[in-house]
Amino acid sequence: MTTTSTVPAVPSQRSVLERLLRPHSIAIIGASPQFGKVNGRPLKHLLDKGYAGRIYPVNPKYTEIAGLACHPDVASLPEAADLAIIALPAREVEACIAALGRRGIGAAVIFSSGFGEMGAEGKLLEQRLRRCADEHGVAFCGPNCLGFVNAFDKVYATFSQYADGPTSAGPVAFVTQSGAFGTAIAALATQRGLGLGYFINTGNEAGVPFSDLMLSVIEDPRIRVAAGYLEGIRDGEGLIRLAERCAELGKPLVLTKVGRLAAGARAAASHTGSLAVGDEVFDALLRQHGVLRARNEEQMLDMLEALCSERAPQGGGLGIATQSGGAGVMMADRAEELGLQVPELAPPTRAALAAVLPAFGSSNNPVDVTGQFVGNPDLLRESVVALLQDPQVDVAIVWLQLMTAYVDLLVPIFQEIRDRTTKPFVVCWVAAPPDALRRLRAEGIVVFGAGERAVEAVAALVRYHQGRRLAAGRRDERASLQAAVRQVEGPAATAQWQAGVQPTLQASARLQSAGVPMAAVALARSADEAVAAWRGFGTAVVLKIESPDITHKTEVGGVLLNLRDERAVREAFATLMQRAAAARPQARLEGVIVQPMSSGQMELAIGVQRDPHFGMVVMVGIGGVLIEVLKDVTFRLAPFSQAEALAMLEELRMRALFDGVRGAPAVDRAALAGLLSRLSVWAAAMRPWLTELDLNPVLVGPQGATAVDCVMVLEGPPAAPPA
Amino acid sequence: MTTTSTVPAVPSQRSVLERLLRPHSIAIIGASPQFGKVNGRPLKHLLDKGYAGRIYPVNPKYTEIAGLACHPDVASLPEAADLAIIALPAREVEACIAALGRRGIGAAVIFSSGFGEMGAEGKLLEQRLRRCADEHGVAFCGPNCLGFVNAFDKVYATFSQYADGPTSAGPVAFVTQSGAFGTAIAALATQRGLGLGYFINTGNEAGVPFSDLMLSVIEDPRIRVAAGYLEGIRDGEGLIRLAERCAELGKPLVLTKVGRLAAGARAAASHTGSLAVGDEVFDALLRQHGVLRARNEEQMLDMLEALCSERAPQGGGLGIATQSGGAGVMMADRAEELGLQVPELAPPTRAALAAVLPAFGSSNNPVDVTGQFVGNPDLLRESVVALLQDPQVDVAIVWLQLMTAYVDLLVPIFQEIRDRTTKPFVVCWVAAPPDALRRLRAEGIVVFGAGERAVEAVAALVRYHQGRRLAAGRRDERASLQAAVRQVEGPAATAQWQAGVQPTLQASARLQSAGVPMAAVALARSADEAVAAWRGFGTAVVLKIESPDITHKTEVGGVLLNLRDERAVREAFATLMQRAAAARPQARLEGVIVQPMSSGQMELAIGVQRDPHFGMVVMVGIGGVLIEVLKDVTFRLAPFSQAEALAMLEELRMRALFDGVRGAPAVDRAALAGLLSRLSVWAAAMRPWLTELDLNPVLVGPQGATAVDCVMVLEGPPAAPPA
Repeated sequence: MTTTSTVPAVPSQRSVLERLLRPHSIAIIGASPQFGKVNGRPLKHLLDKGYAGRIYPVNPKYTEIAGLACHPDVASLPEAADLAIIALPAREVEACIAALGRRGIGAAVIFSSGFGEMGAEGKLLEQRLRRCADEHGVAFCGPNCLGFVNAFDKVYATFSQYADGPTSAGPVAFVTQSGAFGTAIAALATQRGLGLGYFINTGNEAGVPFSDLMLSVIEDPRIRVAAGYLEGIRDGEGLIRLAERCAELGKPLVLTKVGRLAAGARAAASHTGSLAVGDEVFDALLRQHGVLRARNEEQMLDMLEALCSERAPQGGGLGIATQSGGAGVMMADRAEELGLQVPELAPPTRAALAAVLPAFGSSNNPVDVTGQFVGNPDLLRESVVALLQDPQVDVAIVWLQLMTAYVDLLVPIFQEIRDRTTKPFVVCWVAAPPDALRRLRAEGIVVFGAGERAVEAVAALVRYHQGRRLAAGRRDERASLQAAVRQVEGPAATAQWQAGVQPTLQASARLQSAGVPMAAVALARSADEAVAAWRGFGTAVVLKIESPDITHKTEVGGVLLNLRDERAVREAFATLMQRAAAARPQARLEGVIVQPMSSGQMELAIGVQRDPHFGMVVMVGIGGVLIEVLKDVTFRLAPFSQAEALAMLEELRMRALFDGVRGAPAVDRAALAGLLSRLSVWAAAMRPWLTELDLNPVLVGPQGATAVDCVMVLEGPPAAPPA
Repeated sequence: MTTTSTVPAVPSQRSVLERLLRPHSIAIIGASPQFGKVNGRPLKHLLDKGYAGRIYPVNPKYTEIAGLACHPDVASLPEAADLAIIALPAREVEACIAALGRRGIGAAVIFSSGFGEMGAEGKLLEQRLRRCADEHGVAFCGPNCLGFVNAFDKVYATFSQYADGPTSAGPVAFVTQSGAFGTAIAALATQRGLGLGYFINTGNEAGVPFSDLMLSVIEDPRIRVAAGYLEGIRDGEGLIRLAERCAELGKPLVLTKVGRLAAGARAAASHTGSLAVGDEVFDALLRQHGVLRARNEEQMLDMLEALCSERAPQGGGLGIATQSGGAGVMMADRAEELGLQVPELAPPTRAALAAVLPAFGSSNNPVDVTGQFVGNPDLLRESVVALLQDPQVDVAIVWLQLMTAYVDLLVPIFQEIRDRTTKPFVVCWVAAPPDALRRLRAEGIVVFGAGERAVEAVAALVRYHQGRRLAAGRRDERASLQAAVRQVEGPAATAQWQAGVQPTLQASARLQSAGVPMAAVALARSADEAVAAWRGFGTAVVLKIESPDITHKTEVGGVLLNLRDERAVREAFATLMQRAAAARPQARLEGVIVQPMSSGQMELAIGVQRDPHFGMVVMVGIGGVLIEVLKDVTFRLAPFSQAEALAMLEELRMRALFDGVRGAPAVDRAALAGLLSRLSVWAAAMRPWLTELDLNPVLVGPQGATAVDCVMVLEGPPAAPPA
């Protein structure tokens, strides 16, 4: 899909989403003169708000509505309008779509409910709708949606309550899967003076999905920030494309997705691979692509306010100027928790502050300007200017409260601070007079009502710009990773295997050749072979039962450790075969796996899973067998670079272990990251076939990383397996 | 301190805090007719708001102010007023206090700044002020404070901006160490319709501390909820008394303390005992006494709104009725994170819901009532009533948005829901019309503006009432714990020891007799003695260097494990002595400690530290030597019961390990909790002498808990040590 940001002369050459979202003409199917009703409201809004395009009401009951000619049906429309708004009962929608197609109208927004949200019958109706639209070449938003607003071009193709109030066009595009919640968020945005250039409710998303709508609106040069509210993922790859495109355009994307825990609850506890589920994968995708996640609507709006700032912080140094020492401490604490720095100020800054501050103020950061600035405005102005000029300060927060009688004094001070500085700053004005908020926002000055929230929003702004600086490098990485994936895909497509749990020897060899260091391994089909393998390794060994039908060997007592002599090995072979036969009489027993005993400084677990929405996902966690208790894990979508893998390791809670504790040396992070990156390339290439991979434990020490145990599950191979 | 809630006939018999906070007469020292100034504002407020007591302005410059006789000095006052407001320059305050004392005025609030907050000179002035007040028997609030408001009795002894606006008396007492932040919080409370019965700013707290002021106001029967804002702890034991008294009265206490991380940063990483510092101890105190901690002002106000509800939830079952499925999921997730349950509804509830809900609604919890209730009010009313009648539901949240045109419809619905039910519920109305908020609050219906915040407030309400149900039992426990402490104190006071790190044998014996199971231990002064000890134990042993000068044995290579034969033991003895002598040439070497090798299913660390504010603090954490990396620790003030220790264990992140993982049996939680409780009793008794205790590791398995290693540091003993 391509879109253009200028409006070409010939409408029909514009992309279908261009015509849908920025129509030059609109037909309202089922239009009504009753402006309070769902089918009356869009026309009212279009007229009230001054839509400049052509409007065609369609309804056989009327010849005219609000002074506009009303057409009896779609066929008799005087032109193929860019967009049709469908406000008909569900049972009439399919025929309408067909009529639109025949009339050459290629884009529609369908308000009608009674589809997928209404049980089996509704789902069937929705399937038919989708098929009909495909056949007739009609792209549509909905059904069961509130429609959308393009406030720039005064397109009010909606019956949402949101359009009732004053709606100002602005740099934010907001696309929401929920109608009710989305409307509330849009109303809250308006209350804060955040202008929404687009407000789109996607409803059932039977037609154009969330990501395509968002991809279209972010191309609009009038949009600077994108925000989305999601209840589920319907198009994972579209979401990845959207994240990539936002990064290319340098437009921040903020997403709120509900259902953070529901997916987690489904996770089976027995597989480490299965720790990679739903929400964690979504979260990984966002981190990987520099998308900000807001946990709720308030955080989303806070982030949007900060992101609408024209100024970008060059680092994470936060300067705080405050009227209350305690508020300063609270904000500094929160900043530290969120990874910002609250730097010591440079001597010239401190000298400049000391020159203006009263004796009981503080020229440390946080700078306590005290309440004296009411009598002496210089105090506030010069303090904040000095703070922003400090080389370690990248962004500042100015905290004050009430000052109801001093709005006229304070607003110009903030304007002057803005004019005399180049770094971003935000005002936190607790219990502010409404007039102060309005006037500061009109000046483009970002203002919050609570200190911790101001810090959280600033942290998001810093995180976004840090991510952006890294993103350029990532684009080159992506090309070379894709090339690496293609190199692996070729051999994989001609290989042969049986579907199911792979024999340890083959799985191990496959990973070894993919660049994953594997512990030595031998298969013994008899006690004699086990003894021979033990002799060959020349060290204590571990024996593990080998069967395609036994994935979790420890559950059948199928592992015996630290076998040091012939008798022990011989007995262990017999014991394992007996135990397995007793526990799983139906299991095919191939013998036992013999491995040298190995130990590392740290035990990790690494898993690969195929996510239905996003593809292959690699997990790494600290803790080996305790991984499910420790839950110290993190995820990335495959493929990813070694640099990305290093960033991944830094997300682990117990990352201090990598540096060695209590005198232990640092482990080889680079080797581990290399293993993860190569594994991710292999996993991406094996996407059609790899169901699950579980490396646990992976032992890591100062000399590198080695996977000791692996469970690999493959689907049927590209070529037929040998009989 | 005792207070009475009725006003006795003879004022002088009332307690000094009674006279300070609920004065029948007020002298304003330094009063001014300029009502905009600090020394003019209190009189203006008292007159404007209608204070009914007697007011005596004092200022030699005037004979009359606002129609009141103005007195030239304190001595010439016609009566010993209950309270003096001091609005004088700092240098005149001391003399004024002396004059008050001579005139028989025992309570004052001092606005004047220029004391402790102004460097060394100011601190000196403050010390003299305190001494003078002690000598003259004057209790005072301040200096450097905004004063206070007792809105019930219209006592506006303040110059705070807060008193400028309308201030309604209500069930909340708010005491704040910060003037500026506190004023903002009070203003926000008023904006939310939360009535503050008391607003007190404590300033420098040179006189009556925060806890005593709060202890006085919570006795007022008109107060139902107490809230405090703290910047530092000046009176730890007072805070404990306050928490206990609030629990006895059944009045919730909510505290916000800034400086959550600053103290943590000071923590040295080398001692596990030192993990018990500052903020964590404060946090432990609050948990132990059922005090709620709000991390910032917004959370504090949210909690206060919920706590002002007259209804108490009997459990943690949350019912959610929502107009948006997505908002329901978001709230259910947050509820789960906070330990609430979102229960499946009982069949009768589901039947009742199915009877009223439209087909596309959901009669699961969260109940999706859809937007249809606008046309059919029954739908909302009957759904919420049914939800609240479900036996698993203890409290409900009703989520809706905007509905600007339907306030007249909705407010009566919520009134009727309230009247037909007995369980607590809160309304979450996103982007609510201001009129809706005002009307619901006037009806005593709690209303929030964001879903997650509603859940957080409800969770605090549930936590408070759960804590309250436990509190009754705790009061009996406390008496028996104190008796146990006294039993230990006697022998401790007659014991003998050398100050410093205690020899392992003595430390171990002392703990063993305090009821802490210790691993067997022997001291060997020679290789022969070490071998004899090894033979005595009859198992593999560990040798550790023993020296009062070497606290961290591993740092000098002073531990050798798993010694299985005579030669190994003999060599180990020599090695340890050589290593220690090389690493610490000055250290006195007593020999080596011999212990049987021991192992447990889990390694814990237990520490005791003496907190300067709160006394003895016991820490327990999972992880043994990795404790500093895992940071999975929790704290309690000593002494505490076994039940409290069990609750403590449940706070650990990796508590699942106690139940056994991967086939391991559950460990003996009760034994571990018993150990912790007995240790806490001993630690409380040893408060004057015990500086630090470090038990690491403590091994726990199905058969009990044993401390393997201990470092005990004592100060000089009660009696002189033997030479």
